[in-house]
Amino acid sequence: MKIIEGGVTSAKGYQATGLHAGIRKGKSKKDMALIYSEVPAVFAGTFTRNKVKAAPVKWGKKIVKEQQTVQAIVVNSGVANACTGEEGMNNCEKMAEMTAKELGIKKEEVLVCSTGVIGNQLPMELIEAGITLLVPALKSDRESAIMASEAIMTTDTHKKECAVTIEVGGKTVTIGGMCKGSGMIHPNMGTMLAFITTDVAITKEMLQKALYEDVQDTYNMVSVDGDTSTNDTAYVLANGLAGNVLIDTENEDYHIFVKALHEVNTYLAKQIAQDGEGATKLLEVFVENAVTKEDAKVLSKAVACSSLTKTALYGKDANWGRIFCAMGYSGAEFNPDTTDITIKSEFGQLQLVKNGISTGYDEEEATKILSAEHVICIADVKEGKASAVAWGCDLTHEYVSINADYRS
Amino acid sequence: MKIIEGGVTSAKGYQATGLHAGIRKGKSKKDMALIYSEVPAVFAGTFTRNKVKAAPVKWGKKIVKEQQTVQAIVVNSGVANACTGEEGMNNCEKMAEMTAKELGIKKEEVLVCSTGVIGNQLPMELIEAGITLLVPALKSDRESAIMASEAIMTTDTHKKECAVTIEVGGKTVTIGGMCKGSGMIHPNMGTMLAFITTDVAITKEMLQKALYEDVQDTYNMVSVDGDTSTNDTAYVLANGLAGNVLIDTENEDYHIFVKALHEVNTYLAKQIAQDGEGATKLLEVFVENAVTKEDAKVLSKAVACSSLTKTALYGKDANWGRIFCAMGYSGAEFNPDTTDITIKSEFGQLQLVKNGISTGYDEEEATKILSAEHVICIADVKEGKASAVAWGCDLTHEYVSINADYRS
Repeated sequence: MKIIEGGVTSAKGYQATGLHAGIRKGKSKKDMALIYSEVPAVFAGTFTRNKVKAAPVKWGKKIVKEQQTVQAIVVNSGVANACTGEEGMNNCEKMAEMTAKELGIKKEEVLVCSTGVIGNQLPMELIEAGITLLVPALKSDRESAIMASEAIMTTDTHKKECAVTIEVGGKTVTIGGMCKGSGMIHPNMGTMLAFITTDVAITKEMLQKALYEDVQDTYNMVSVDGDTSTNDTAYVLANGLAGNVLIDTENEDYHIFVKALHEVNTYLAKQIAQDGEGATKLLEVFVENAVTKEDAKVLSKAVACSSLTKTALYGKDANWGRIFCAMGYSGAEFNPDTTDITIKSEFGQLQLVKNGISTGYDEEEATKILSAEHVICIADVKEGKASAVAWGCDLTHEYVSINADYRS
Repeated sequence: MKIIEGGVTSAKGYQATGLHAGIRKGKSKKDMALIYSEVPAVFAGTFTRNKVKAAPVKWGKKIVKEQQTVQAIVVNSGVANACTGEEGMNNCEKMAEMTAKELGIKKEEVLVCSTGVIGNQLPMELIEAGITLLVPALKSDRESAIMASEAIMTTDTHKKECAVTIEVGGKTVTIGGMCKGSGMIHPNMGTMLAFITTDVAITKEMLQKALYEDVQDTYNMVSVDGDTSTNDTAYVLANGLAGNVLIDTENEDYHIFVKALHEVNTYLAKQIAQDGEGATKLLEVFVENAVTKEDAKVLSKAVACSSLTKTALYGKDANWGRIFCAMGYSGAEFNPDTTDITIKSEFGQLQLVKNGISTGYDEEEATKILSAEHVICIADVKEGKASAVAWGCDLTHEYVSINADYRS
């Protein structure tokens, strides 16, 4: 597997662009993006499990169910088009329709995503004007992918992209992706959008399986507690232009593809955690030797989600009691009396807890380790063989500032 | 029912005191309290559901199970005596033993509570010295109750006490209480201790029933998500000195008592929310007309717990999408399309959402309402007849400061 500089235009046959349509305040803020596959692409999608679903999520679920292929994804930031009733649903469909018209395809071949403030209607004149500018601007170069990745940002401080190439049956397959999302305290409320484009030849069914399974171990582990926002969506488009033998079963080619897809998704998921609103640190929480994989996931997520763990991390305070406490209320099975906790970073490694009680470690050394920008916490529960990793960030003064003033 | 100025010494036959034993840094910070009933009292306790249980919780559960009566509760703040292994359990038992010895009672008649940092062992020399000073200082006056209520504080900014009197079968019964706890983002991690003393004559069984049921609607609704910290405990002592006919069934007297107990617990629970770490506002979330009581509780708690709702409240931002989103991911049943949301305070009342979409309300008016120190949010889901209320507070810069530096 080769990691290359790239994004949604890296795979063969994809074009993209992004621009400022005026939905977000501030001319420098791009707020519309378009991804286009030159040929029909099979596709897969996973969506929020929130009972309150944004209009584009409802549209996407319908398209995933009814369509074999699509050719475009149109995205706006600034307004989420959630809790907007029938008018919101009509606006979403119009957005697909306008894009389809400009591209000369059917509206059912256009996926739609929105992210931003909940409850407001889309400014349809700006959206329409934006679409007429997006389509002629489509290009397959690197710069256009960057513009698209910038246009989907909201409180993100930087774009999030990556791409890899792999060999599948002698053919070079490329997978490129971009995402947006700022890991939050309750990140289930922060919209996460991920778009992956690949030229692999694969059936829609196998693509859906690959995406669905990998999302559980990647985006869903970004300090999420199992639920998601009103708009969360991940799409993968696969247009087959790599020319490999069609992947239609769980064969070796499938596993090669899944492994590469996992790399892309993991990279993007960690980027989301690292760029948490106001965050100064990335936290990786490994839970090892749990009885079941599900226990390991629940335990690691609980720690990565804990506001007290997050604030302690911000304060470089090795307050492991908070880690223990989060594991304790997570609901997962584990024995506190056999649990070890270790922290690790570029500045060293230190065991804080052995069999449920303090090792009497040096606080200064712990503080030094926690002062790194990337901190790893390992909880070894020593009961079974299952492990999991969750990603989070610290909780800072800046987080409060961002979210107290989000709409102003 | 009459609300009186008072606390744990208001009911007949109770003494208390509090002092600085040196466990917490700063001479002005009291850190040990003692409550004493002059005659044996039946008692009831409810405890944390966290898998990680502090030593005093384990001790309390044993005593509740095995003993008919107790006479004292000894409390320390500063060190939680949680995750302290066998040594911690021995220290807890020693704390009961020392107190019993000074009071001339059995150690099984002494309940113990600790609150503070997890993972450290109790400084037993200070604890012992503290106990020898506490016992001779016991008094039944108002001042002594206040000293006790101050000694159980950690990050609390003020003491939390109240008392009521009721007539039960022609006799005056008094219920007094104090508690500590700072409502938090994930308040299940902030230790909540509540101590209620009453002179009512009641059986242990009926007292336990009364406490257990009322805790579900009071302390457990302080922006808790069903779980609790390693140390959370609520105790009620009832010594029978009011001389009423013993309450031994769910008769009229029982219901009079339960109603009064509910008043005391509700008052204390709201005090906890209002004094949330760094909080500037109390938030009351009413969910009305849900299908089941459990749905109403889950929905109201989800809103009161939501970090994004809390930060929006801090910013006086009527970002109702976050309220909706929290309800959506709560897991409870409700129909977004029939839900109304209204906010209310001393500065007015305003409907933000009707049947799932914005009413087009005036943002300035909303901001004015949200600028009050006590804000009420009402979500009417219009599907059934069940309702519930949860209490929370805003999430502020100060919260982050407190928790980043908690141990330093």
